Amino acid sequence: MNVKIEKLIKQFAKLPRVGNRAATRIALGLLQDKNGRIQMLADALTDAANSIHPCSCCGVLTDMDLCEYCSDITRKNGQLCIVRDLSDVLVLEKSGVFHGRYHVLGGNLSGVSGVTPNDLNLDNIKSRIDNENIKEIIFALPNTVEGKTTQQYIISIIGDKDVVFSELASGVPLGGDLDYIDDGTLTLAFGGRKKL
Amino acid sequence: MNVKIEKLIKQFAKLPRVGNRAATRIALGLLQDKNGRIQMLADALTDAANSIHPCSCCGVLTDMDLCEYCSDITRKNGQLCIVRDLSDVLVLEKSGVFHGRYHVLGGNLSGVSGVTPNDLNLDNIKSRIDNENIKEIIFALPNTVEGKTTQQYIISIIGDKDVVFSELASGVPLGGDLDYIDDGTLTLAFGGRKKL
Repeated sequence: MNVKIEKLIKQFAKLPRVGNRAATRIALGLLQDKNGRIQMLADALTDAANSIHPCSCCGVLTDMDLCEYCSDITRKNGQLCIVRDLSDVLVLEKSGVFHGRYHVLGGNLSGVSGVTPNDLNLDNIKSRIDNENIKEIIFALPNTVEGKTTQQYIISIIGDKDVVFSELASGVPLGGDLDYIDDGTLTLAFGGRKKL
Repeated sequence: MNVKIEKLIKQFAKLPRVGNRAATRIALGLLQDKNGRIQMLADALTDAANSIHPCSCCGVLTDMDLCEYCSDITRKNGQLCIVRDLSDVLVLEKSGVFHGRYHVLGGNLSGVSGVTPNDLNLDNIKSRIDNENIKEIIFALPNTVEGKTTQQYIISIIGDKDVVFSELASGVPLGGDLDYIDDGTLTLAFGGRKKL
């Protein structure tokens, strides 16, 4: 196969959950497209690579200095939701359940993956609490050992501030059949049972 | 969500078999990648868009004037395999079953999709037969009404040349369970049964 086409296929095959077969199909589809989509995609990528960077305050990706959430004064409601990455912000925004400000860590502490506190976006977390008059910090981190470790670490470094900490509830998902739920979730759901 | 990120996601979502969810995952993965993969992909795309074009002889995509198959003198063995598009060439090359030259049509005649003989790469098919001393034309077109119509059309325009025409055999695929095979294939396999 032509070297340049092969190079393009290899770049596509590195994308998350795109295998060799799909990468070939995508590359050939673009190369044979008559509407110039290949140049449009290249331009959108170059434009994004040059202009998109983390918000200087919260870490959400943006092309401005402050992202759309940090620059929206109506979202300054005293609540700060700490998430792992941008996709979590998008999920929460889509649900419409949260109307405060975000703080994106860019990862979770992990011995296995070698993620240390220095790798997380935490430099300005204490100044944000003061500047934005934060009253409640909501942890929306993954319900895993890494997520819980990260949560404990963050509480330990900002524990002297006058804020309420909360985390998302654990339990049986909506529509969840008990047959298909793992023991860990069941134990959490049982321990956190609500009186009726 | 940021407009530029949204634009990038939309470009990815237009790729074959990439839905909105996968497009979002791909775009965010690239934007958060620390090894500069986003610029590498943009460069590979721009490079391909500027240099890749159909081979002036057979229509295979290449960055040279003649593709690797047309410039390979050992492949001038008198056989010409007519295929619909480049992905068919790749499948045949991978199987190692064919060692002659290719001719890529760029589509099949289709009333529904409005593909006419003028849309197919057929201008030089007669001169190729003379210049490359072609003795056999092998049709490796899709086993569909469109494929067979295209095959008949091509035979009709080069019928006066001294060449043998052949097409790939129809039948039960290797490992194919009769339970799962459609009636059309079964009828073809039955009609084309071989004496043992």
